[in-house]
Amino acid sequence: MQKKLDQFKRMIMEVTDLGHAEAVLGWDQQVYMPRGGGEDRGDILETIASLAHQKFTCKEMGELLAELKPYAQTLDADSDDACLIQRVAHRYDKETRVPTEWVVDFTRVTTLAQMAWEEARAKSDFAIFQPHLEKVVDLRRAYASFFQPYDHVYDPLLDGFEPGLKTAEVQQIFDALRPQQVALLKEIAAKPEIDDAFMHVPYDEQGQWDFGVEVITRFGYDWNRGRQDKSVHPFTTSFGINDVRITTRFDPSRAASALFSTMHEAGHAMYEQGFSASLRRLPLADGASMAVHESQSRMWENLVGRSKAFWKFFYPRLVQKFPQQLKGVSLEQYYRGINKVEPSLIRVEADEATYNLHIMLRLELEIGLMDGSVRVADLPGLWNKKMQEYLGVTPPNDRLGVLQDVHWSGGMIGYFPTYALGNLVSAQLWEKIMENIPDLEDQISRGKFDDLLAWLRTHIHRHGAKYEPQQLIKKVTGTGIRPDPYMRYLRAKYAEIYNL
Amino acid sequence: MQKKLDQFKRMIMEVTDLGHAEAVLGWDQQVYMPRGGGEDRGDILETIASLAHQKFTCKEMGELLAELKPYAQTLDADSDDACLIQRVAHRYDKETRVPTEWVVDFTRVTTLAQMAWEEARAKSDFAIFQPHLEKVVDLRRAYASFFQPYDHVYDPLLDGFEPGLKTAEVQQIFDALRPQQVALLKEIAAKPEIDDAFMHVPYDEQGQWDFGVEVITRFGYDWNRGRQDKSVHPFTTSFGINDVRITTRFDPSRAASALFSTMHEAGHAMYEQGFSASLRRLPLADGASMAVHESQSRMWENLVGRSKAFWKFFYPRLVQKFPQQLKGVSLEQYYRGINKVEPSLIRVEADEATYNLHIMLRLELEIGLMDGSVRVADLPGLWNKKMQEYLGVTPPNDRLGVLQDVHWSGGMIGYFPTYALGNLVSAQLWEKIMENIPDLEDQISRGKFDDLLAWLRTHIHRHGAKYEPQQLIKKVTGTGIRPDPYMRYLRAKYAEIYNL
Repeated sequence: MQKKLDQFKRMIMEVTDLGHAEAVLGWDQQVYMPRGGGEDRGDILETIASLAHQKFTCKEMGELLAELKPYAQTLDADSDDACLIQRVAHRYDKETRVPTEWVVDFTRVTTLAQMAWEEARAKSDFAIFQPHLEKVVDLRRAYASFFQPYDHVYDPLLDGFEPGLKTAEVQQIFDALRPQQVALLKEIAAKPEIDDAFMHVPYDEQGQWDFGVEVITRFGYDWNRGRQDKSVHPFTTSFGINDVRITTRFDPSRAASALFSTMHEAGHAMYEQGFSASLRRLPLADGASMAVHESQSRMWENLVGRSKAFWKFFYPRLVQKFPQQLKGVSLEQYYRGINKVEPSLIRVEADEATYNLHIMLRLELEIGLMDGSVRVADLPGLWNKKMQEYLGVTPPNDRLGVLQDVHWSGGMIGYFPTYALGNLVSAQLWEKIMENIPDLEDQISRGKFDDLLAWLRTHIHRHGAKYEPQQLIKKVTGTGIRPDPYMRYLRAKYAEIYNL
Repeated sequence: MQKKLDQFKRMIMEVTDLGHAEAVLGWDQQVYMPRGGGEDRGDILETIASLAHQKFTCKEMGELLAELKPYAQTLDADSDDACLIQRVAHRYDKETRVPTEWVVDFTRVTTLAQMAWEEARAKSDFAIFQPHLEKVVDLRRAYASFFQPYDHVYDPLLDGFEPGLKTAEVQQIFDALRPQQVALLKEIAAKPEIDDAFMHVPYDEQGQWDFGVEVITRFGYDWNRGRQDKSVHPFTTSFGINDVRITTRFDPSRAASALFSTMHEAGHAMYEQGFSASLRRLPLADGASMAVHESQSRMWENLVGRSKAFWKFFYPRLVQKFPQQLKGVSLEQYYRGINKVEPSLIRVEADEATYNLHIMLRLELEIGLMDGSVRVADLPGLWNKKMQEYLGVTPPNDRLGVLQDVHWSGGMIGYFPTYALGNLVSAQLWEKIMENIPDLEDQISRGKFDDLLAWLRTHIHRHGAKYEPQQLIKKVTGTGIRPDPYMRYLRAKYAEIYNL
C-alpha cells in the first residue's frame, strides 16, 4: 500500500507542479507580459491546463484512489495522508463527473462572455451581455445536474469554493445577518457625515509603496519567500509555499486604496506562507476555502489595519511620509476618516458596514438564476430594486449596477458568498484570538504582530486544506460559521465612531 | 496524410508550448524569483521538462514521423511543412538514440558538477572540479558513441548547437583564421596603448538604462512584443514570437558593459521577433543555429554598435546624458576607447581582435578531451600554455584561467566554437549587406536602421530554423561559413584605429 501511496503522491505532485506553472504564467501575464504576448500565452496556458486535467483524471488515478480510500479510513483522521486522500478523492469525483464536452463548451462560452461583458460594461448596455449570461447560467444549471441528487441546485456550485458548505446554511446565516446590518446602517445614516477630505488629495506612489512595505514587513510577510509587484487588479498567487507573491495598484487620489489592498493581499499571502512544510507540492498546500482565505485577508486589512490600535503606532509614521497631505489631521480624525460608512454603488469600494449587503443581494440573484425563479433579463431591475432596499441607493446605470463585477462572465457563480462569509469568519476568529492573547490590542499599538501571526499559523495556516472549512472553524472556535461575532464587532466599532 | 500532418502539428505545438512554459519559469527564476523559491521552481521545471520529453519521444510521434518523412520528400523543399518534418525527424532521431539512463545520469552529474565548479572557481582550486569534469567528459564520450558511425567523435556534440556542421569544417576555418589573428594582434601590440580612462568612471544606472533603451528602440526592437529587465547574467528568452525578452546588468564603473550587452541581446531578440508568423508554435520558430544567432547579436553589438558611423549619431546624445564623464573626450577618442585591443584573461571581456583566440583554445581542448588526447588533469597547464601562445598572457590562477566559464560544468561541450563562428558569419553577412545597401554607413550615421533590419528580416530572420545553418548562409552569401570577411573587417578597422 505504501508503494501505491508513493505513486499516488508522485502523480499528485506533478499535477501540483503544473498548477504552479500555470500560476507563474498567469502572474507574468498580469504583471509583466508585453501586449503582443497574449495569444501565445493563451496557447501555453491551455496546453498546461489540459495536461493537468488529463493527468488528474486519468484511469490510473481513479484506480489508485479506489484502493487508497479504504486505506485512508485506517489512518489517523488528522494525518496528512488521510486528509490528502480524502480531499483528492472529493476533487477527483467532481472532475470526473463533468463531461469533457461540458468543459469545452464552458471554456468557449465564458471566453466570449468575458469579452461581451467588457464591452457591455464599457457601454453600460446590459443587452450586449444578456445572451452570453443566459448561456452561462444554462451551463451552470447543467453543471449542477451532474451532481444530482442534491439538497439545493446551488450546492454543487458553492462546493467549488466552500467545500462541504450547504446553501441552506448560508441562507440561514445571511437571514440572521441582513436585518441587523440594515438596522445598523440606518442608525449610522442618521448621524452627521464624517469629513474624509484628506483622503482624496494626491499621495505620491513611492511613498504609498514604501509605507505599505513597512506595514506588511512588520506584519510578518516573508520577503525571502515572496515579492510585491504592480498590476491592474491586485491579487495573491503562489508557486509553492516558498514563493507567494502579491500585487498592488495605485490611485494617486485614493491613497487608502493601495495601502489597504496591500494589507489585504499580505493577509492572503501570509496564510499561504504558513502552510506546513509537510504539505509541499500537495493540493493540501492551499487555503481551506475561499471564505477562510478571505478571513485572513480581511482580518489584516480591517480588524488589524482599520483599528485604532494599529494607527496609534503607524499614524505618526504616515504623517512623516505625507506631512502635507495630513497637516492638521489628528489621529482621531484619520481613524474616523478611514472608517467612514457610506452606502455606495460599487462592492469593491464598500466599507465594513455595507459590504456584506452587496454580497447578500448577489447571492439572492444567483440562487434565483439557478432555481429558475429569476430570469437573466430581469437582473438589472432586480439589482436596482434590492440596492435601494438594502443600501438606500439606486445605480444610475448598469455599469455602476449589475455589470460591475467580472465573476458571472467567467462563470463563477457561487463565489460571492465567500466574501461575506470571510468577514464573518474573521470576526469569529478574532474573538477567540482576544481570549487567547488578551493584550493583543496593546501589542498592535506597539507595532507588534508576532503573537497574532503565531496564533494564526498554529490554528489556521499550517493545516492548509486538510480540513473542510466548517470543520476547521469548529475545531478552532467551537462552532461553524456564525454571524454574531461580526455584528458584535461592527456594533462596538461604529457605536464609538458614530456615537450611536 | 493531411490529417496525420495536423495531428503531428498539434503534438509538436504542445511540446513547443511546454518549452515556452519552461522559458517563462526560467526567466522569472533569473529575474524576479525570491531566494526561497528555488526548490519549488526546480520541481516545476523538472516536471515540465519530463512531460515535454515524454510527449516528444512518444511512440505516436515516431509513427507519425515514419509516415510523414516520405511525404515531406514530395513537398517543395522550401515549404514550412517539409522543413518542419525534416527538422523534427532529425531531433527525434537524436533524442530517441539517447537512453533514458544516460539522461538521468547526465542530469545528476552536471547538477553536482555545477556546484563543484562554483566552489572550485571561488577557491581557484581546479582539483575540486576535476573529478566532476572527468565524469562529464566520460558521459559526453558515451553520448557521442550513440551516434556511431561518425566522422569525428566531436561531431555529435557540435550538431547539438550547429546542426549539420562538421568538426573538420570548423577546424579548417579556425586553422585559416588563427595565424592571421595572432599576427594582427602582434602588430597592434607594437603600437601605443589607447587611453580609455573615461570608460572607467562611474556612470549612473538610470542614464545607462535610458540610453540603451533609446539605442535599441532605434534599432527596431519591438517593445510591444518584448521587454527588458535586469539579471545577474544578461540573456534573451522567448515565450513565442510575440514575446521575446532581454535582460541586462549594470556595472557602475564599466558603462560600456551594459550598453553593448543591451545591443547584443537586442540583436538576438530582433532575430526571434522576425520569425515568420507562419512558424508560430512550431520548433521552426527558433534560430537556425547558435552561430547564426550569435551573428545577429554580434552584428548589432560590434559591426553596428562599435562603428564610427553609429557613434557619429549617438555620441552627442551620450554626451548629453553624461556630460561630466565625457568632458573633453572627442568622438574620435571615444571611438578608439571602445575599440581598444588588449589581450586579457577573461573571454567575456575580450575585444573583437582577441575574442576568437579564446574560443580556438577552448575548441582544441574540447576536441582533445573527446578524442582522448587530453586528460582532464592536464587542462590547467595546457590552458595556460595556449593563453601565452595565442594571447601573450598567462593566468595567475585557475579562476582567471581554466575555471572561468560555466559551460563544461553544465556538460555543454560543443558550444564554444559557435561564438567565434558567429563573429565570422556576422562579417560575412555584412559584406553582402554592404553590396545590397551601399549607403548603409550613411544611414547609420543618421540613426536609421530600417533598411538593415529589413534586410536581415528578409534574408535571415523570417526563415527561423527552416534551414541548417550552412545551407542558410550559402543561400544568402553563396558559400558556407568562411573566415576571410571577418579578417578583412578586423584588418580595415584596426589599421585605421592603430595606424597599422
